[in-house]
Amino acid sequence: MNLDTLYSELTLKTKAKLALVVLDGLGDLATIAQGEVTPLEAANTPNLDRLVARGVAQGRMTPVAPGITPGSGPGHLALFGYDPLEFQVGRGVIEALGLGIELKAGDVAARANFCTLDSKGLVTDRRAGRIETEVCEELCGLLARKIRKLGDTEVIIKPGKGHRFVVVFRGKGLEGPLTDADPHREGEPISKAEPVNPKSTKAKKTAKLVADFYKAALPVLAKKQPANGFLMRGIAHQPDIPSFEERYRLKPACIAVYPMYKGLAQLVGMTKLEGTHTIDEQFERYLDEYDNYDFFFIHFKATDMYGEDGNFEAKKRAIEEFDAALPILLKKRPDVIAITGDHSTPCALKAHSWHPIPVLIHSDYSGSDKLDRFTETGANLGSLGIFDAKYLVRFMQANARMFDKFGA
Amino acid sequence: MNLDTLYSELTLKTKAKLALVVLDGLGDLATIAQGEVTPLEAANTPNLDRLVARGVAQGRMTPVAPGITPGSGPGHLALFGYDPLEFQVGRGVIEALGLGIELKAGDVAARANFCTLDSKGLVTDRRAGRIETEVCEELCGLLARKIRKLGDTEVIIKPGKGHRFVVVFRGKGLEGPLTDADPHREGEPISKAEPVNPKSTKAKKTAKLVADFYKAALPVLAKKQPANGFLMRGIAHQPDIPSFEERYRLKPACIAVYPMYKGLAQLVGMTKLEGTHTIDEQFERYLDEYDNYDFFFIHFKATDMYGEDGNFEAKKRAIEEFDAALPILLKKRPDVIAITGDHSTPCALKAHSWHPIPVLIHSDYSGSDKLDRFTETGANLGSLGIFDAKYLVRFMQANARMFDKFGA
Repeated sequence: MNLDTLYSELTLKTKAKLALVVLDGLGDLATIAQGEVTPLEAANTPNLDRLVARGVAQGRMTPVAPGITPGSGPGHLALFGYDPLEFQVGRGVIEALGLGIELKAGDVAARANFCTLDSKGLVTDRRAGRIETEVCEELCGLLARKIRKLGDTEVIIKPGKGHRFVVVFRGKGLEGPLTDADPHREGEPISKAEPVNPKSTKAKKTAKLVADFYKAALPVLAKKQPANGFLMRGIAHQPDIPSFEERYRLKPACIAVYPMYKGLAQLVGMTKLEGTHTIDEQFERYLDEYDNYDFFFIHFKATDMYGEDGNFEAKKRAIEEFDAALPILLKKRPDVIAITGDHSTPCALKAHSWHPIPVLIHSDYSGSDKLDRFTETGANLGSLGIFDAKYLVRFMQANARMFDKFGA
Repeated sequence: MNLDTLYSELTLKTKAKLALVVLDGLGDLATIAQGEVTPLEAANTPNLDRLVARGVAQGRMTPVAPGITPGSGPGHLALFGYDPLEFQVGRGVIEALGLGIELKAGDVAARANFCTLDSKGLVTDRRAGRIETEVCEELCGLLARKIRKLGDTEVIIKPGKGHRFVVVFRGKGLEGPLTDADPHREGEPISKAEPVNPKSTKAKKTAKLVADFYKAALPVLAKKQPANGFLMRGIAHQPDIPSFEERYRLKPACIAVYPMYKGLAQLVGMTKLEGTHTIDEQFERYLDEYDNYDFFFIHFKATDMYGEDGNFEAKKRAIEEFDAALPILLKKRPDVIAITGDHSTPCALKAHSWHPIPVLIHSDYSGSDKLDRFTETGANLGSLGIFDAKYLVRFMQANARMFDKFGA
C-alpha cells in the first residue's frame, strides 16, 4: 500500500493549530576553527531554552537524500511534506516566484539572461558583460512594451538583478519542460528549445512559442550592444501539486517576507498573509490570524543570508533576534510547534549544504528528550532520530492527533 | 534485488535459540507533568540492569512509518518481520482472532454488532441500545442454532462484549475484502456488502453469501427489539502470509496469554503453547520447551493495559513484575534475546501511539552500548539507532550468526 494513501485514509479533521517555523539555512557546523560551536549553540536563546524545558522532541532531518544539497525549492517542498524527487519545480518557475510573479496553473516560465551575439549570431559573451540592473530593467521594459502577446498567449517579462530576467508565457495548452535555449558555451549560436518529452503536443506548442518569441524579440535588441541577444533556461510549467489543504485537511497560511517563499507556499495552495517585514510582525500576524487558519508556515530569512556570507556572529545574532520574538508566538500557543530550517547553510561553506537540519517538535504529546537546549549536537541525541524532511508534517499531524489508528 | 530474497538466500540453518519478549505498549513519554521520566525509567529493574551490564545493543523502532499509530495487528506483523503495509490483516480477522476463533486459510471473517431497525428497515440505533453481553450471547446462540450452513459454507457465530459479535464463513472459493454492510450513520438502511475489487469472482461469491446470511438471520431477530438487526464491517479473509518457519528457517512457538496475540502468531504459522497465565508461567514454559523450538515469542500484556488506563504507577509496577520474572528466562539463556514492545502506549495519551519503541538485543555479538539501563532516553543513544520494526527479526538472525556473508 502506498504510504501517502495510508496517511490520507487515516487523517482526521481536528481543531488543532499547527505552526511550522522555518529559520532558513539554520543548520551549521561546529568547526574547530569556530571554537567547535555552531551559531545556534553560541547564541543566547532563553526563550527557546524555556520551550525545551516544557518538553520537546528533537532530531535531525535529511533535506532530500544523503549528501544532497537542496535549493530553496526542494528544501521547502520537503518541509511541506512533498517528496522533492517526485515533485520537481523547474528553475524558471522558482526564478519567477523569486521575482514575485504570481504564477497561475499552466503558466510556463523561463529564467533568461542577456548575452552578446556577433554578426553571425554566435554567442560571444553569455552574460552580456554583466550589464547593470538598470540597463536590464530598461531592456526588459522595451521588450515588454513591444511583445505583449504571441498569438493568444500572454507574455510577461520581468527584470531581475544584473543581466538576469524572467519570461512567463500565459496561455492555453502549454507545457514544459523544454531543453535550454542556451549553448552553455561561447562561440555557438543560441540553441533551439525542444520538448524534453517529444510526444507532448503541448510542449511542442510551447517550443514553437519560444521560437516565435526569439523571432519577435531579437530584432528589438539588434542594436543594444552588448545586450543584443538573450538565453533562456529551465523552461518549465508550474507543476501540478496536490493542494496542502486537501492533502493534510489543514487550512494553511504563509507568513513570509521574501517573494520566493511566498511563491513556494502558493504553489501548494497556501494563503499568503502579506505586509510583514520583521519576525516580530510575522508572529503578531500569526496572533491576528490564529482563528482563520489551521497551519501556519512562518519563514525567517536572515539565518540563511548570514550563513551565505560566512558571517558567524551575524548568524548568531539573527538567531537571538528570532529567540527574542518567540514569546509573541507563544501568546497563543499552537497545539503543535515545529522549529527547524529548510537546509543547513554553514558559515564554513558560505553556501547551502547537505548536513542534517536540527528540528524540534513541541506539543502535549511530544514528550521530553531531557536535553537542556535546542542545538545541532543535542538534536543528534533526540527521540526523532534522523529522518527525511518530508515526514515532518506527518509527525506534526501525529502530535496534533490527526491520525486514526492503523489496523485493529 | 529484493531485500527479502537476499535475506532468504543468505540464511543459514543453525542451532541458535532466539527469544523475542514483547512488553505490549512498552514505549512511553517523559512528560514534564510526570517528572520527566517514563514508567520504564521510573521502574526498579535490577535484572534488566544486570542484562544491560552483560552487554546489550539498544535502539528505537518505528512501528510502521513516521507518525503512524499501529493497532496490535500491524504492530505484531512488523515484529514478526512482515511489512505491515504489504501484509494487511482485515479488522474482521483481528476481531475473530481476539475472540479465540482458530481461523483456517480461506476463512472470511467480519466484525458484527447488533443494531435497531424501524419498520421500514432503517437503522435507528447502530448499537442496539448497547445491549448487555448476556443478551448478545443469547442472540448469537439463537442465530448459531438456526444458521449452521449456507449452501456448502459453514457459518460460525461467536459473541463478543456488549453488542459485538463475529461471523466467520468457512467454505471454498471465498475472498475479501468487502465493503461494510453498515451505512455508518442512522436513518439509512443496512448497506449491501460489495467486493472492494469488483473483478474478483471469489469476492462476488462472498458478497452473495453475506446477502444470504442477512436473508436467513433478519427473520430470526425480527421480534428481538432493540436488537432486531445487525451490521457487518471489516469483512476480510485470512491473508496469505508466508510462514515464519520457511521465511526465517526457525521453528517458532508463541507463549501468550491473550487470544489476540496467539491468533496473530498463528497467522504466521507459530505453534501456540497454551495454558500459561502469568509471566512467570510463560518463562517456565519457555524452559520446558527450550529443546523443541528455535524461536520463542513471549507476550506480556499488562504494560499496554495500564498505558491505556493512563496509570503510570501500575505500568511501572507491571514492568517491575516482568523484571522480577526475567531470571527464569535466563536460566537457559537463549543465544539471542530481544526485549521491546509492539508500539508505545504512553500514559499521557491513554492510547497506542506512533512514538518509537525502545528495544534491546543481547547476544555474544551484540556488543555493549555502555548504557547503564534500558530506557527510552538511553535507547536514543544506542548503536541500533532508529529503525523500522520489521527489521528486528533480521537483527536477531544476524546476532544468531544465521546470515552468510553477502558477496565476496
